Amino acid sequence: MLLQDRSQPLTVDLGGPRSYDVVFDDLEKLPQAMRTASVRPGKILVITDSNVAGHYRSRLDGILKADGWDPLILTLPAGETTKSPRHLQAIYDAALAWHIDRQTPVLAFGGGVIGDLSGFAASSLLRGVPFVQVPTSLIAQVDSAIGGKTGINHEEGKNLIGAFHQPELVFVDPKLLYTLPRREWHGGLAEVFKHALIRDEAFFAWLEASLGNVIARHPDVVPDLVYRAASVKTQIVSRDEKEHGERMLLNFGHTFGHALEKSLGYGVFTHGEAIIVGMRAALHMSRRFNRALDQKRAEAVLGQIPLPPIPASLGLPVVREAMNTDKKRNRSQLRFILLKRIGQAYVTSDVSEADVDAALAYALGRPV
Amino acid sequence: MLLQDRSQPLTVDLGGPRSYDVVFDDLEKLPQAMRTASVRPGKILVITDSNVAGHYRSRLDGILKADGWDPLILTLPAGETTKSPRHLQAIYDAALAWHIDRQTPVLAFGGGVIGDLSGFAASSLLRGVPFVQVPTSLIAQVDSAIGGKTGINHEEGKNLIGAFHQPELVFVDPKLLYTLPRREWHGGLAEVFKHALIRDEAFFAWLEASLGNVIARHPDVVPDLVYRAASVKTQIVSRDEKEHGERMLLNFGHTFGHALEKSLGYGVFTHGEAIIVGMRAALHMSRRFNRALDQKRAEAVLGQIPLPPIPASLGLPVVREAMNTDKKRNRSQLRFILLKRIGQAYVTSDVSEADVDAALAYALGRPV
Repeated sequence: MLLQDRSQPLTVDLGGPRSYDVVFDDLEKLPQAMRTASVRPGKILVITDSNVAGHYRSRLDGILKADGWDPLILTLPAGETTKSPRHLQAIYDAALAWHIDRQTPVLAFGGGVIGDLSGFAASSLLRGVPFVQVPTSLIAQVDSAIGGKTGINHEEGKNLIGAFHQPELVFVDPKLLYTLPRREWHGGLAEVFKHALIRDEAFFAWLEASLGNVIARHPDVVPDLVYRAASVKTQIVSRDEKEHGERMLLNFGHTFGHALEKSLGYGVFTHGEAIIVGMRAALHMSRRFNRALDQKRAEAVLGQIPLPPIPASLGLPVVREAMNTDKKRNRSQLRFILLKRIGQAYVTSDVSEADVDAALAYALGRPV
Repeated sequence: MLLQDRSQPLTVDLGGPRSYDVVFDDLEKLPQAMRTASVRPGKILVITDSNVAGHYRSRLDGILKADGWDPLILTLPAGETTKSPRHLQAIYDAALAWHIDRQTPVLAFGGGVIGDLSGFAASSLLRGVPFVQVPTSLIAQVDSAIGGKTGINHEEGKNLIGAFHQPELVFVDPKLLYTLPRREWHGGLAEVFKHALIRDEAFFAWLEASLGNVIARHPDVVPDLVYRAASVKTQIVSRDEKEHGERMLLNFGHTFGHALEKSLGYGVFTHGEAIIVGMRAALHMSRRFNRALDQKRAEAVLGQIPLPPIPASLGLPVVREAMNTDKKRNRSQLRFILLKRIGQAYVTSDVSEADVDAALAYALGRPV
């Protein structure tokens, strides 16, 4: 089943010179895409992690050098703890000791952690240098590498230090995903399902029909899946760069999911796994207000992602408290993203504490 | 001699919602100006230094509280070494432990160090919170607080980490300058003279005619001087926010001056003192190409600023080498800002090494 024409790049249209393309091609075509994006050969600072470097470091190095680039590749430890002031400083030190100038690009070659960290470094080195995203995880290819959110974590919470800094180019090679650990593939599918649920019923139907191949990462479906999921993200951030409105829809399942991640301690569930649970809570709440929503159909798809057991010791009050911390941060009612039906999401604050408790209890499999 | 009507705020016009006013008034009027700028009472994180706090901390605290604000005042050590990752982290820690939200403003209450550091913190906390500048030094009131350049230093050089982050408001009370140490007043005058020399001959004539009062910081001239010097900066950054063209003129004397500061080791000369020497070099070079320039007239004004002796051990090659480091950073010819005549500056790269040596030798009082 052909879902779409994948030969055209997607465009994040910000109505001016900050617009940029999301290009889908083999890694070997990266230099050509950079030229098209007016990023011209010279020094280039590549940031990657130890997992990605193990698979692709020498290949990328060769591709860049063959095209006249002078790459310096900085390999950081894999994992969320790398999104820290210490590793940000390590990038600053490497970049400045190497005497980069204002035209030297920073290229993020990794998943969301590498992309967020490198993007913030690019935004703040010499008050901003060009930035190129080459995402290597599913979650980064369809979500985090697109839209310009960059940042690092703080002990008070995730992503609390950062900037909006749009890349010059996002270059996606879906074939890089075949070396991804299975659990990360599954985690990335959470965001793919999210994009279909909030905005794209035809895509959801396609995912449903291809579900076996989707879960198994079959080459027949991967390129289509990545392109279509990325196109949802691209459309949304084109219309609402800084999350004043429509971009909030991308937080479907995230209010619950973040609270779960935080309550369990980061690393017990992957982000994607927590978002699956969060979307189940959001679906339950959505159904309460929208009887036309086919909750079972949505859950049948989400249910294909294997999840770790939720520890019996995790109580509802702990999760609720974690949600309230988020709430304070936004000086507002807690906002929920709900579905009217599959493919159509909306934002509401008109939800009672009992509704929240019922949704949480449902998703965690607890009595209210 | 009345130079201008000072009752109107200056405006940094960036052609959209990021435009902002530079308001001149007594510190007591700050809350009213914040309201006008749509910065509304709630928590406010004030960053200041130990010198400014000694004079004005309790006064500002009282003004804010009387208007319904809840200020947290963070007092950092005075001095250039505070523009560091360590103090940036201290601001992050204080802000996030206090649970600021996206509407909580950061207010810089100090000179250029506090303004640059706080502005970068404001740009990166929660991906950007509102920022208010209340500059307390002459150099900050007429120059560094206006235009959105923020950042910290790195061991490789000054201001290498940072962002463009425009404030919501710059609030200037020239009366705060009467407690400034004399040497800082004089250093600030270097930037005032610079603004007159590059763009405003009428202002230069006024400074000349008022020179005794200007050097002595007489209340008859201070408010006019601050307003007029700030208006030059405001006009330039309105037309060229990110220094692609006209804003470079503000670097008059800075190519030489930065090299001198760096060669001597930071802290021997103040920034302003180094800029005085740098402007003398730039005037010498300007005169070489522009015979209509009245170099003596310009130097008669600059000569009023007392300078520390330049150590005899400082050789021309060291200063030249420091200039070349700057050059590499910009991947370009070294650019010089020269004067065609007093009040009219231009950018050129068409300068020989012999011209540079001659200018340096002149300003340092050395044989070529």
